[in-house]
Amino acid sequence: MDIAALLTSTGINIVICVVLFSFYSILRKQPINVNVYFGRRLASQHSKRINLCLERFLPSPSWIWKAWETSEDEIMAIGGLDGVVFVRILVFSIRVFSIAAGICIILVLPINYHGQDRIHKIIPFESLEVFTIENVKEGSKWLWAHCLALYVITLSACTLLYFEYKSITYLRLLHIIGSPPNPSHFTILVRSIPWSSEQSYCETVKNFFSHYHAPTYLSHQMIYKSGTVQKLKDDAEHMCKVIKHASVEKTCKSNFTPCCYPGFATNSFKKISSEMDSIQRKMSYNNMHLDTGEKDCAAAFVFFKSRYAALMAALVQQTSNPMLWVTDVAPEPHDVYWSNIRIPYRQLWLRKIATFVASVAFMLVFLIPVTFVQGLTQLDKLQKMLPFLTGILKEKIVNQVVTGYLPSVILVLFLYAVPPMMMFFSAVEGSISRSSRKKSACCKVLYFTIWNVFFVNVFTGSVISQLSVFSSVTDLPSQLAKAVPAQSTFFTTYVLSSGWASLACEVMQFFPLLCNIVERFILRHKEDTLNGNLSFPYHTEVPKVLLFGFLGFTCSILAPLILPFLLIYFFLAYLVYRNQIINVYITKYDSGGQFWPIAHNTTIFSLIFAQLIALGVFGLKSSSIASGFTIPLLIGTLLFHQYCRKRFLPVFKSNSAQILIDLDLRDERCGRMEEIYEQLRTTYNQPNVMLHASCHPQCCGHHENKDSGESSEDMEKGKENNQKNRPQAVQRSLSLSSDKSVLGVN
Amino acid sequence: MDIAALLTSTGINIVICVVLFSFYSILRKQPINVNVYFGRRLASQHSKRINLCLERFLPSPSWIWKAWETSEDEIMAIGGLDGVVFVRILVFSIRVFSIAAGICIILVLPINYHGQDRIHKIIPFESLEVFTIENVKEGSKWLWAHCLALYVITLSACTLLYFEYKSITYLRLLHIIGSPPNPSHFTILVRSIPWSSEQSYCETVKNFFSHYHAPTYLSHQMIYKSGTVQKLKDDAEHMCKVIKHASVEKTCKSNFTPCCYPGFATNSFKKISSEMDSIQRKMSYNNMHLDTGEKDCAAAFVFFKSRYAALMAALVQQTSNPMLWVTDVAPEPHDVYWSNIRIPYRQLWLRKIATFVASVAFMLVFLIPVTFVQGLTQLDKLQKMLPFLTGILKEKIVNQVVTGYLPSVILVLFLYAVPPMMMFFSAVEGSISRSSRKKSACCKVLYFTIWNVFFVNVFTGSVISQLSVFSSVTDLPSQLAKAVPAQSTFFTTYVLSSGWASLACEVMQFFPLLCNIVERFILRHKEDTLNGNLSFPYHTEVPKVLLFGFLGFTCSILAPLILPFLLIYFFLAYLVYRNQIINVYITKYDSGGQFWPIAHNTTIFSLIFAQLIALGVFGLKSSSIASGFTIPLLIGTLLFHQYCRKRFLPVFKSNSAQILIDLDLRDERCGRMEEIYEQLRTTYNQPNVMLHASCHPQCCGHHENKDSGESSEDMEKGKENNQKNRPQAVQRSLSLSSDKSVLGVN
Repeated sequence: MDIAALLTSTGINIVICVVLFSFYSILRKQPINVNVYFGRRLASQHSKRINLCLERFLPSPSWIWKAWETSEDEIMAIGGLDGVVFVRILVFSIRVFSIAAGICIILVLPINYHGQDRIHKIIPFESLEVFTIENVKEGSKWLWAHCLALYVITLSACTLLYFEYKSITYLRLLHIIGSPPNPSHFTILVRSIPWSSEQSYCETVKNFFSHYHAPTYLSHQMIYKSGTVQKLKDDAEHMCKVIKHASVEKTCKSNFTPCCYPGFATNSFKKISSEMDSIQRKMSYNNMHLDTGEKDCAAAFVFFKSRYAALMAALVQQTSNPMLWVTDVAPEPHDVYWSNIRIPYRQLWLRKIATFVASVAFMLVFLIPVTFVQGLTQLDKLQKMLPFLTGILKEKIVNQVVTGYLPSVILVLFLYAVPPMMMFFSAVEGSISRSSRKKSACCKVLYFTIWNVFFVNVFTGSVISQLSVFSSVTDLPSQLAKAVPAQSTFFTTYVLSSGWASLACEVMQFFPLLCNIVERFILRHKEDTLNGNLSFPYHTEVPKVLLFGFLGFTCSILAPLILPFLLIYFFLAYLVYRNQIINVYITKYDSGGQFWPIAHNTTIFSLIFAQLIALGVFGLKSSSIASGFTIPLLIGTLLFHQYCRKRFLPVFKSNSAQILIDLDLRDERCGRMEEIYEQLRTTYNQPNVMLHASCHPQCCGHHENKDSGESSEDMEKGKENNQKNRPQAVQRSLSLSSDKSVLGVN
Repeated sequence: MDIAALLTSTGINIVICVVLFSFYSILRKQPINVNVYFGRRLASQHSKRINLCLERFLPSPSWIWKAWETSEDEIMAIGGLDGVVFVRILVFSIRVFSIAAGICIILVLPINYHGQDRIHKIIPFESLEVFTIENVKEGSKWLWAHCLALYVITLSACTLLYFEYKSITYLRLLHIIGSPPNPSHFTILVRSIPWSSEQSYCETVKNFFSHYHAPTYLSHQMIYKSGTVQKLKDDAEHMCKVIKHASVEKTCKSNFTPCCYPGFATNSFKKISSEMDSIQRKMSYNNMHLDTGEKDCAAAFVFFKSRYAALMAALVQQTSNPMLWVTDVAPEPHDVYWSNIRIPYRQLWLRKIATFVASVAFMLVFLIPVTFVQGLTQLDKLQKMLPFLTGILKEKIVNQVVTGYLPSVILVLFLYAVPPMMMFFSAVEGSISRSSRKKSACCKVLYFTIWNVFFVNVFTGSVISQLSVFSSVTDLPSQLAKAVPAQSTFFTTYVLSSGWASLACEVMQFFPLLCNIVERFILRHKEDTLNGNLSFPYHTEVPKVLLFGFLGFTCSILAPLILPFLLIYFFLAYLVYRNQIINVYITKYDSGGQFWPIAHNTTIFSLIFAQLIALGVFGLKSSSIASGFTIPLLIGTLLFHQYCRKRFLPVFKSNSAQILIDLDLRDERCGRMEEIYEQLRTTYNQPNVMLHASCHPQCCGHHENKDSGESSEDMEKGKENNQKNRPQAVQRSLSLSSDKSVLGVN
């Protein structure tokens, strides 16, 4: 490939991007697409009506200005800390690759170009290899420049990483301190409650915590089974009871007693009873006669009187059997992944091992379609393997389709299957919160992407030759040193095509757009069904951005030409993702910046990897001085990583006593504690269990019993607090769901 | 090597052992050696006078009966839980290798022997290789027997491991509950206290804990610098002050005020003052005028009012900066490794990395003497390298010495250097307790031993060829499958010579015996200087026993002939070590069974390793069925290990809330709490800081100030408690049964 070809390719990609961005700027102005491009605004009721005028059909860069102008505080308010962290990852990449581009283009590129004594063609017809380190002759004295560039890049990356980590840690602490009282701080999740034949789980929990945590225990809330099978089973059981006890119908009505859900549950029951007599009858049977003890899971949310007490109870091992009374910090109410909370704790370690094995297998098995696709480009091989295809394949159009389009289509389809697959694995794994599921999926997709894009491309060839990489660990640096510079041209075009195009696709939102068009014009729906359903896909976008960072670090001193394209990518990404955070995605839950440690670790890995490759290359070029200087850099980077792990990571793992105690003291001084306790009762609403919830009059999770009048007041109060307490974006969907919850459906 | 040679070697070793054991049985009866062989009894003042009679000079097996008869409760009372765990490791080994010997000698040995169709010699002249798996011909259908034996060994080992782990976990819990109130349960170690120019560390600690842990904070005790350099510096400084303020001598005397160490410190001061007036004068200057703030370390012991509160404070991250206010569970008073507590916390992570690198380097560098020693046996090579030696080496005696004795002497000397070296590494690493230092050294010695005895012997050859093992990970099983059976004869003789002989040496205590003789007859000392100085060297003995277990598992189905020798070794070890625990070693501190997880993990590693080798061997012998059946066994073993990690390991990592709260409640009910609080004040006596301790009247760590009269009483009481409190805890066995109810677990 020569410079001219690269420039042509760049031109084509620029044209595609400009066209798509222009299209976007027109499409977003059409009222019909408002639910595609302004999902978040619709959800938070801020969308404005757009008037019909000529302007609507002219492309305009206004969205770019809007995305550029938005301040970090606004991003924080809209996208939560995760949104800010994502933007910070992009800002970090822009900064570090600006420095890298500066030093590499001024210092490294000329040395690479003049690396060998030969007559150069005019630049447009120069091969791209001339600009890589491959052009530097063996034993060259100029390799110190590459080593210096490596030092500058590593040092600036580490410095920037340190300050970013520090600042994000600070933001996270502010986020904890600044936000309104968070119910999850007062709550722990208890799993693996021991089963006892004498008492229900509910009573067991109450007895345990009121004995061992008497001064701080507030109340608890059981978790109920509500899978599909369980539902069918319940229904069948219920019908039996209804038929069996049809005769005692009248006498039962008076037996209704207040239940252990003082807030909405009783209330919802009352409401239903006033509206529908038949349902009330069903309910009271249920209430009276069903042996509902078995429907509890061995899990509960336990509420404490202070944040510190809750953290303590979550951290400590409760009994001498570590498989019983397993406590965890509770996720935030919107963040709870209900179906996983019901998984018996004893399964979890097996599930974790199984999903680990499955995702590693998936990563390796994914090589098969890749190899198959590579096979498609060589039709003669395919004809040999499947001789009956020979006739068809001889036709020219079929041939062109098979060799030209099919491979990339198959690859893209397979690649689209990866994030949902990883999300599925993370769900099976047993994450108790949606944010931790997304974080786990993000890590899996990241490993997958780096493995399948980078390593498989570097060690192109059959499945077996890729696996044989494992068998020669010590040769790895030199093998990489041979393979990576050779592949750097490919990675440059990869950034151009895949990187830039993915941003254009992201902003266009092709799939929702298509759905919208189908719904509006074919199915003729009038309502906005897509309304605010999308949350930011961190598990696909974080790995994408980090992959490009990885490519940047590994190729920077080997083939500096990749850097300008990468800078453009990061700059575009900065604008596009800010726009998406502001307009499209709603923030249902927030992990509190948990993606930054992933980004940090990946960047350190990239640096180490780049240094190892450089070590290999310097070895191949027999420059002992450059190799010698790379080793301290390697050790320094590892030490820096270890320091950051010690200094910052614990803040992302658990809250500190000082902060929680300060918050507790503040709230006590303000007299806000009672209010918070009231709010706790109504916060964790398990979906689909409204009916079951009222089946437990025998054990009351709360210390004080309120009569139903008070409860309904509590409920209103709780709701208000709830509303205050959520990210703005969630409020509308919340009020919808709370209406639904009163009806007992969701 | 043939059977006859093996039997000869066995005979020689038996004779050596019998002679040494007989010698021991005579030597132990000599009053002159009582401090060598009855150190523990001397220390606990139970030694009886031995009368001069003929019996003294006749060997007798009475010590064997004594060792055999001693019950586990007695071992627990004498050697602590660690002693019991060590004996249990031996019992486990005896049990599992009895089963292994049974199945392997009945089933595997005949199959190996008749593995190939050939005419056998009479058994005494049969080569040992005939009894190994190497003799089974390729593709043999009889390999299922080896596979079955592997199954039986693995399953019985896992079952035994499970029950042992369960029982030791139970013993550990009993140990926590049953022992008298342990001051360490009420104490945490705080390190990295932030420095403030306005107040001393002492005040900072007081302010922090009385603000954030107000309801539970009792008092604290600072830790002082007292290294040699610091001492010299202090002395110099002190002398300056004395000279400077010589004129105010008289007026100062009255200015003495009670200080922040209500217990021993004030008391010791008083004692000194009454005895030596000059020192008192010095002290009072010190007390008045020295700016002693700088002598505090940024570390303190903080005492809490309940065990649960202390555990909580130890577990939680105190502030948002994880590098400040680092809390840990405090070690027991006798277990504190004072000099390491003073290490600034910021150094610790660096020290850990450094010692890790150093110990790996040491492990690899140790190959150099091994190779050198191997070189000595080939004198011609040595002569080429060092030509000036040619003359000397030509003499016959020199030649014999160099080739015959020197190699083994050098090796043994080098091997003797290993445990102290590893102990040194573990000390540098920064362990805060002696038991954790010993545990860490134990792990290091274990890795070292397995690496240097097993792997280096298996892959004999130059340093380079040993290192190249790393470069071919996938070939490892087949390489091992080739190498291990070939080396199994060597391992059999290793068990015979090194194993049996080491036990005889252990019981003879050559080094202390020699010291004793030198002291008595050459230096003419009369006092027992060795009196009770030795604590059980778990860091050398645990790895030794585990190494033989490792050899047993890996060789059992490959070369079953090793098993009888191993069984004899374990049986002898059982007797010898029990004898040593009862008579020789004193228990200064107890890790609470922390050596069992190490033994468990090593056993699992050995099993996995044996299965991998078996997999390789079955592959080489092209028995796909046997290989196929080995894989589920491998997976099953890994899952079992994971389960045990989940189920038992956390109990060894931290105490559970239930137990501590139950203990707190029990003590509160008995009204023992005040007594415990009093005891806490005098428990942690930092050595060499008596003088410094009295220099801090400005900050009082204890809430209530006692006058010195009470303090001296406290001190006496504290001392008594201290004695009561020792890990040998003779009285603990009495309270065991009554406290079982508190456990409330299986």
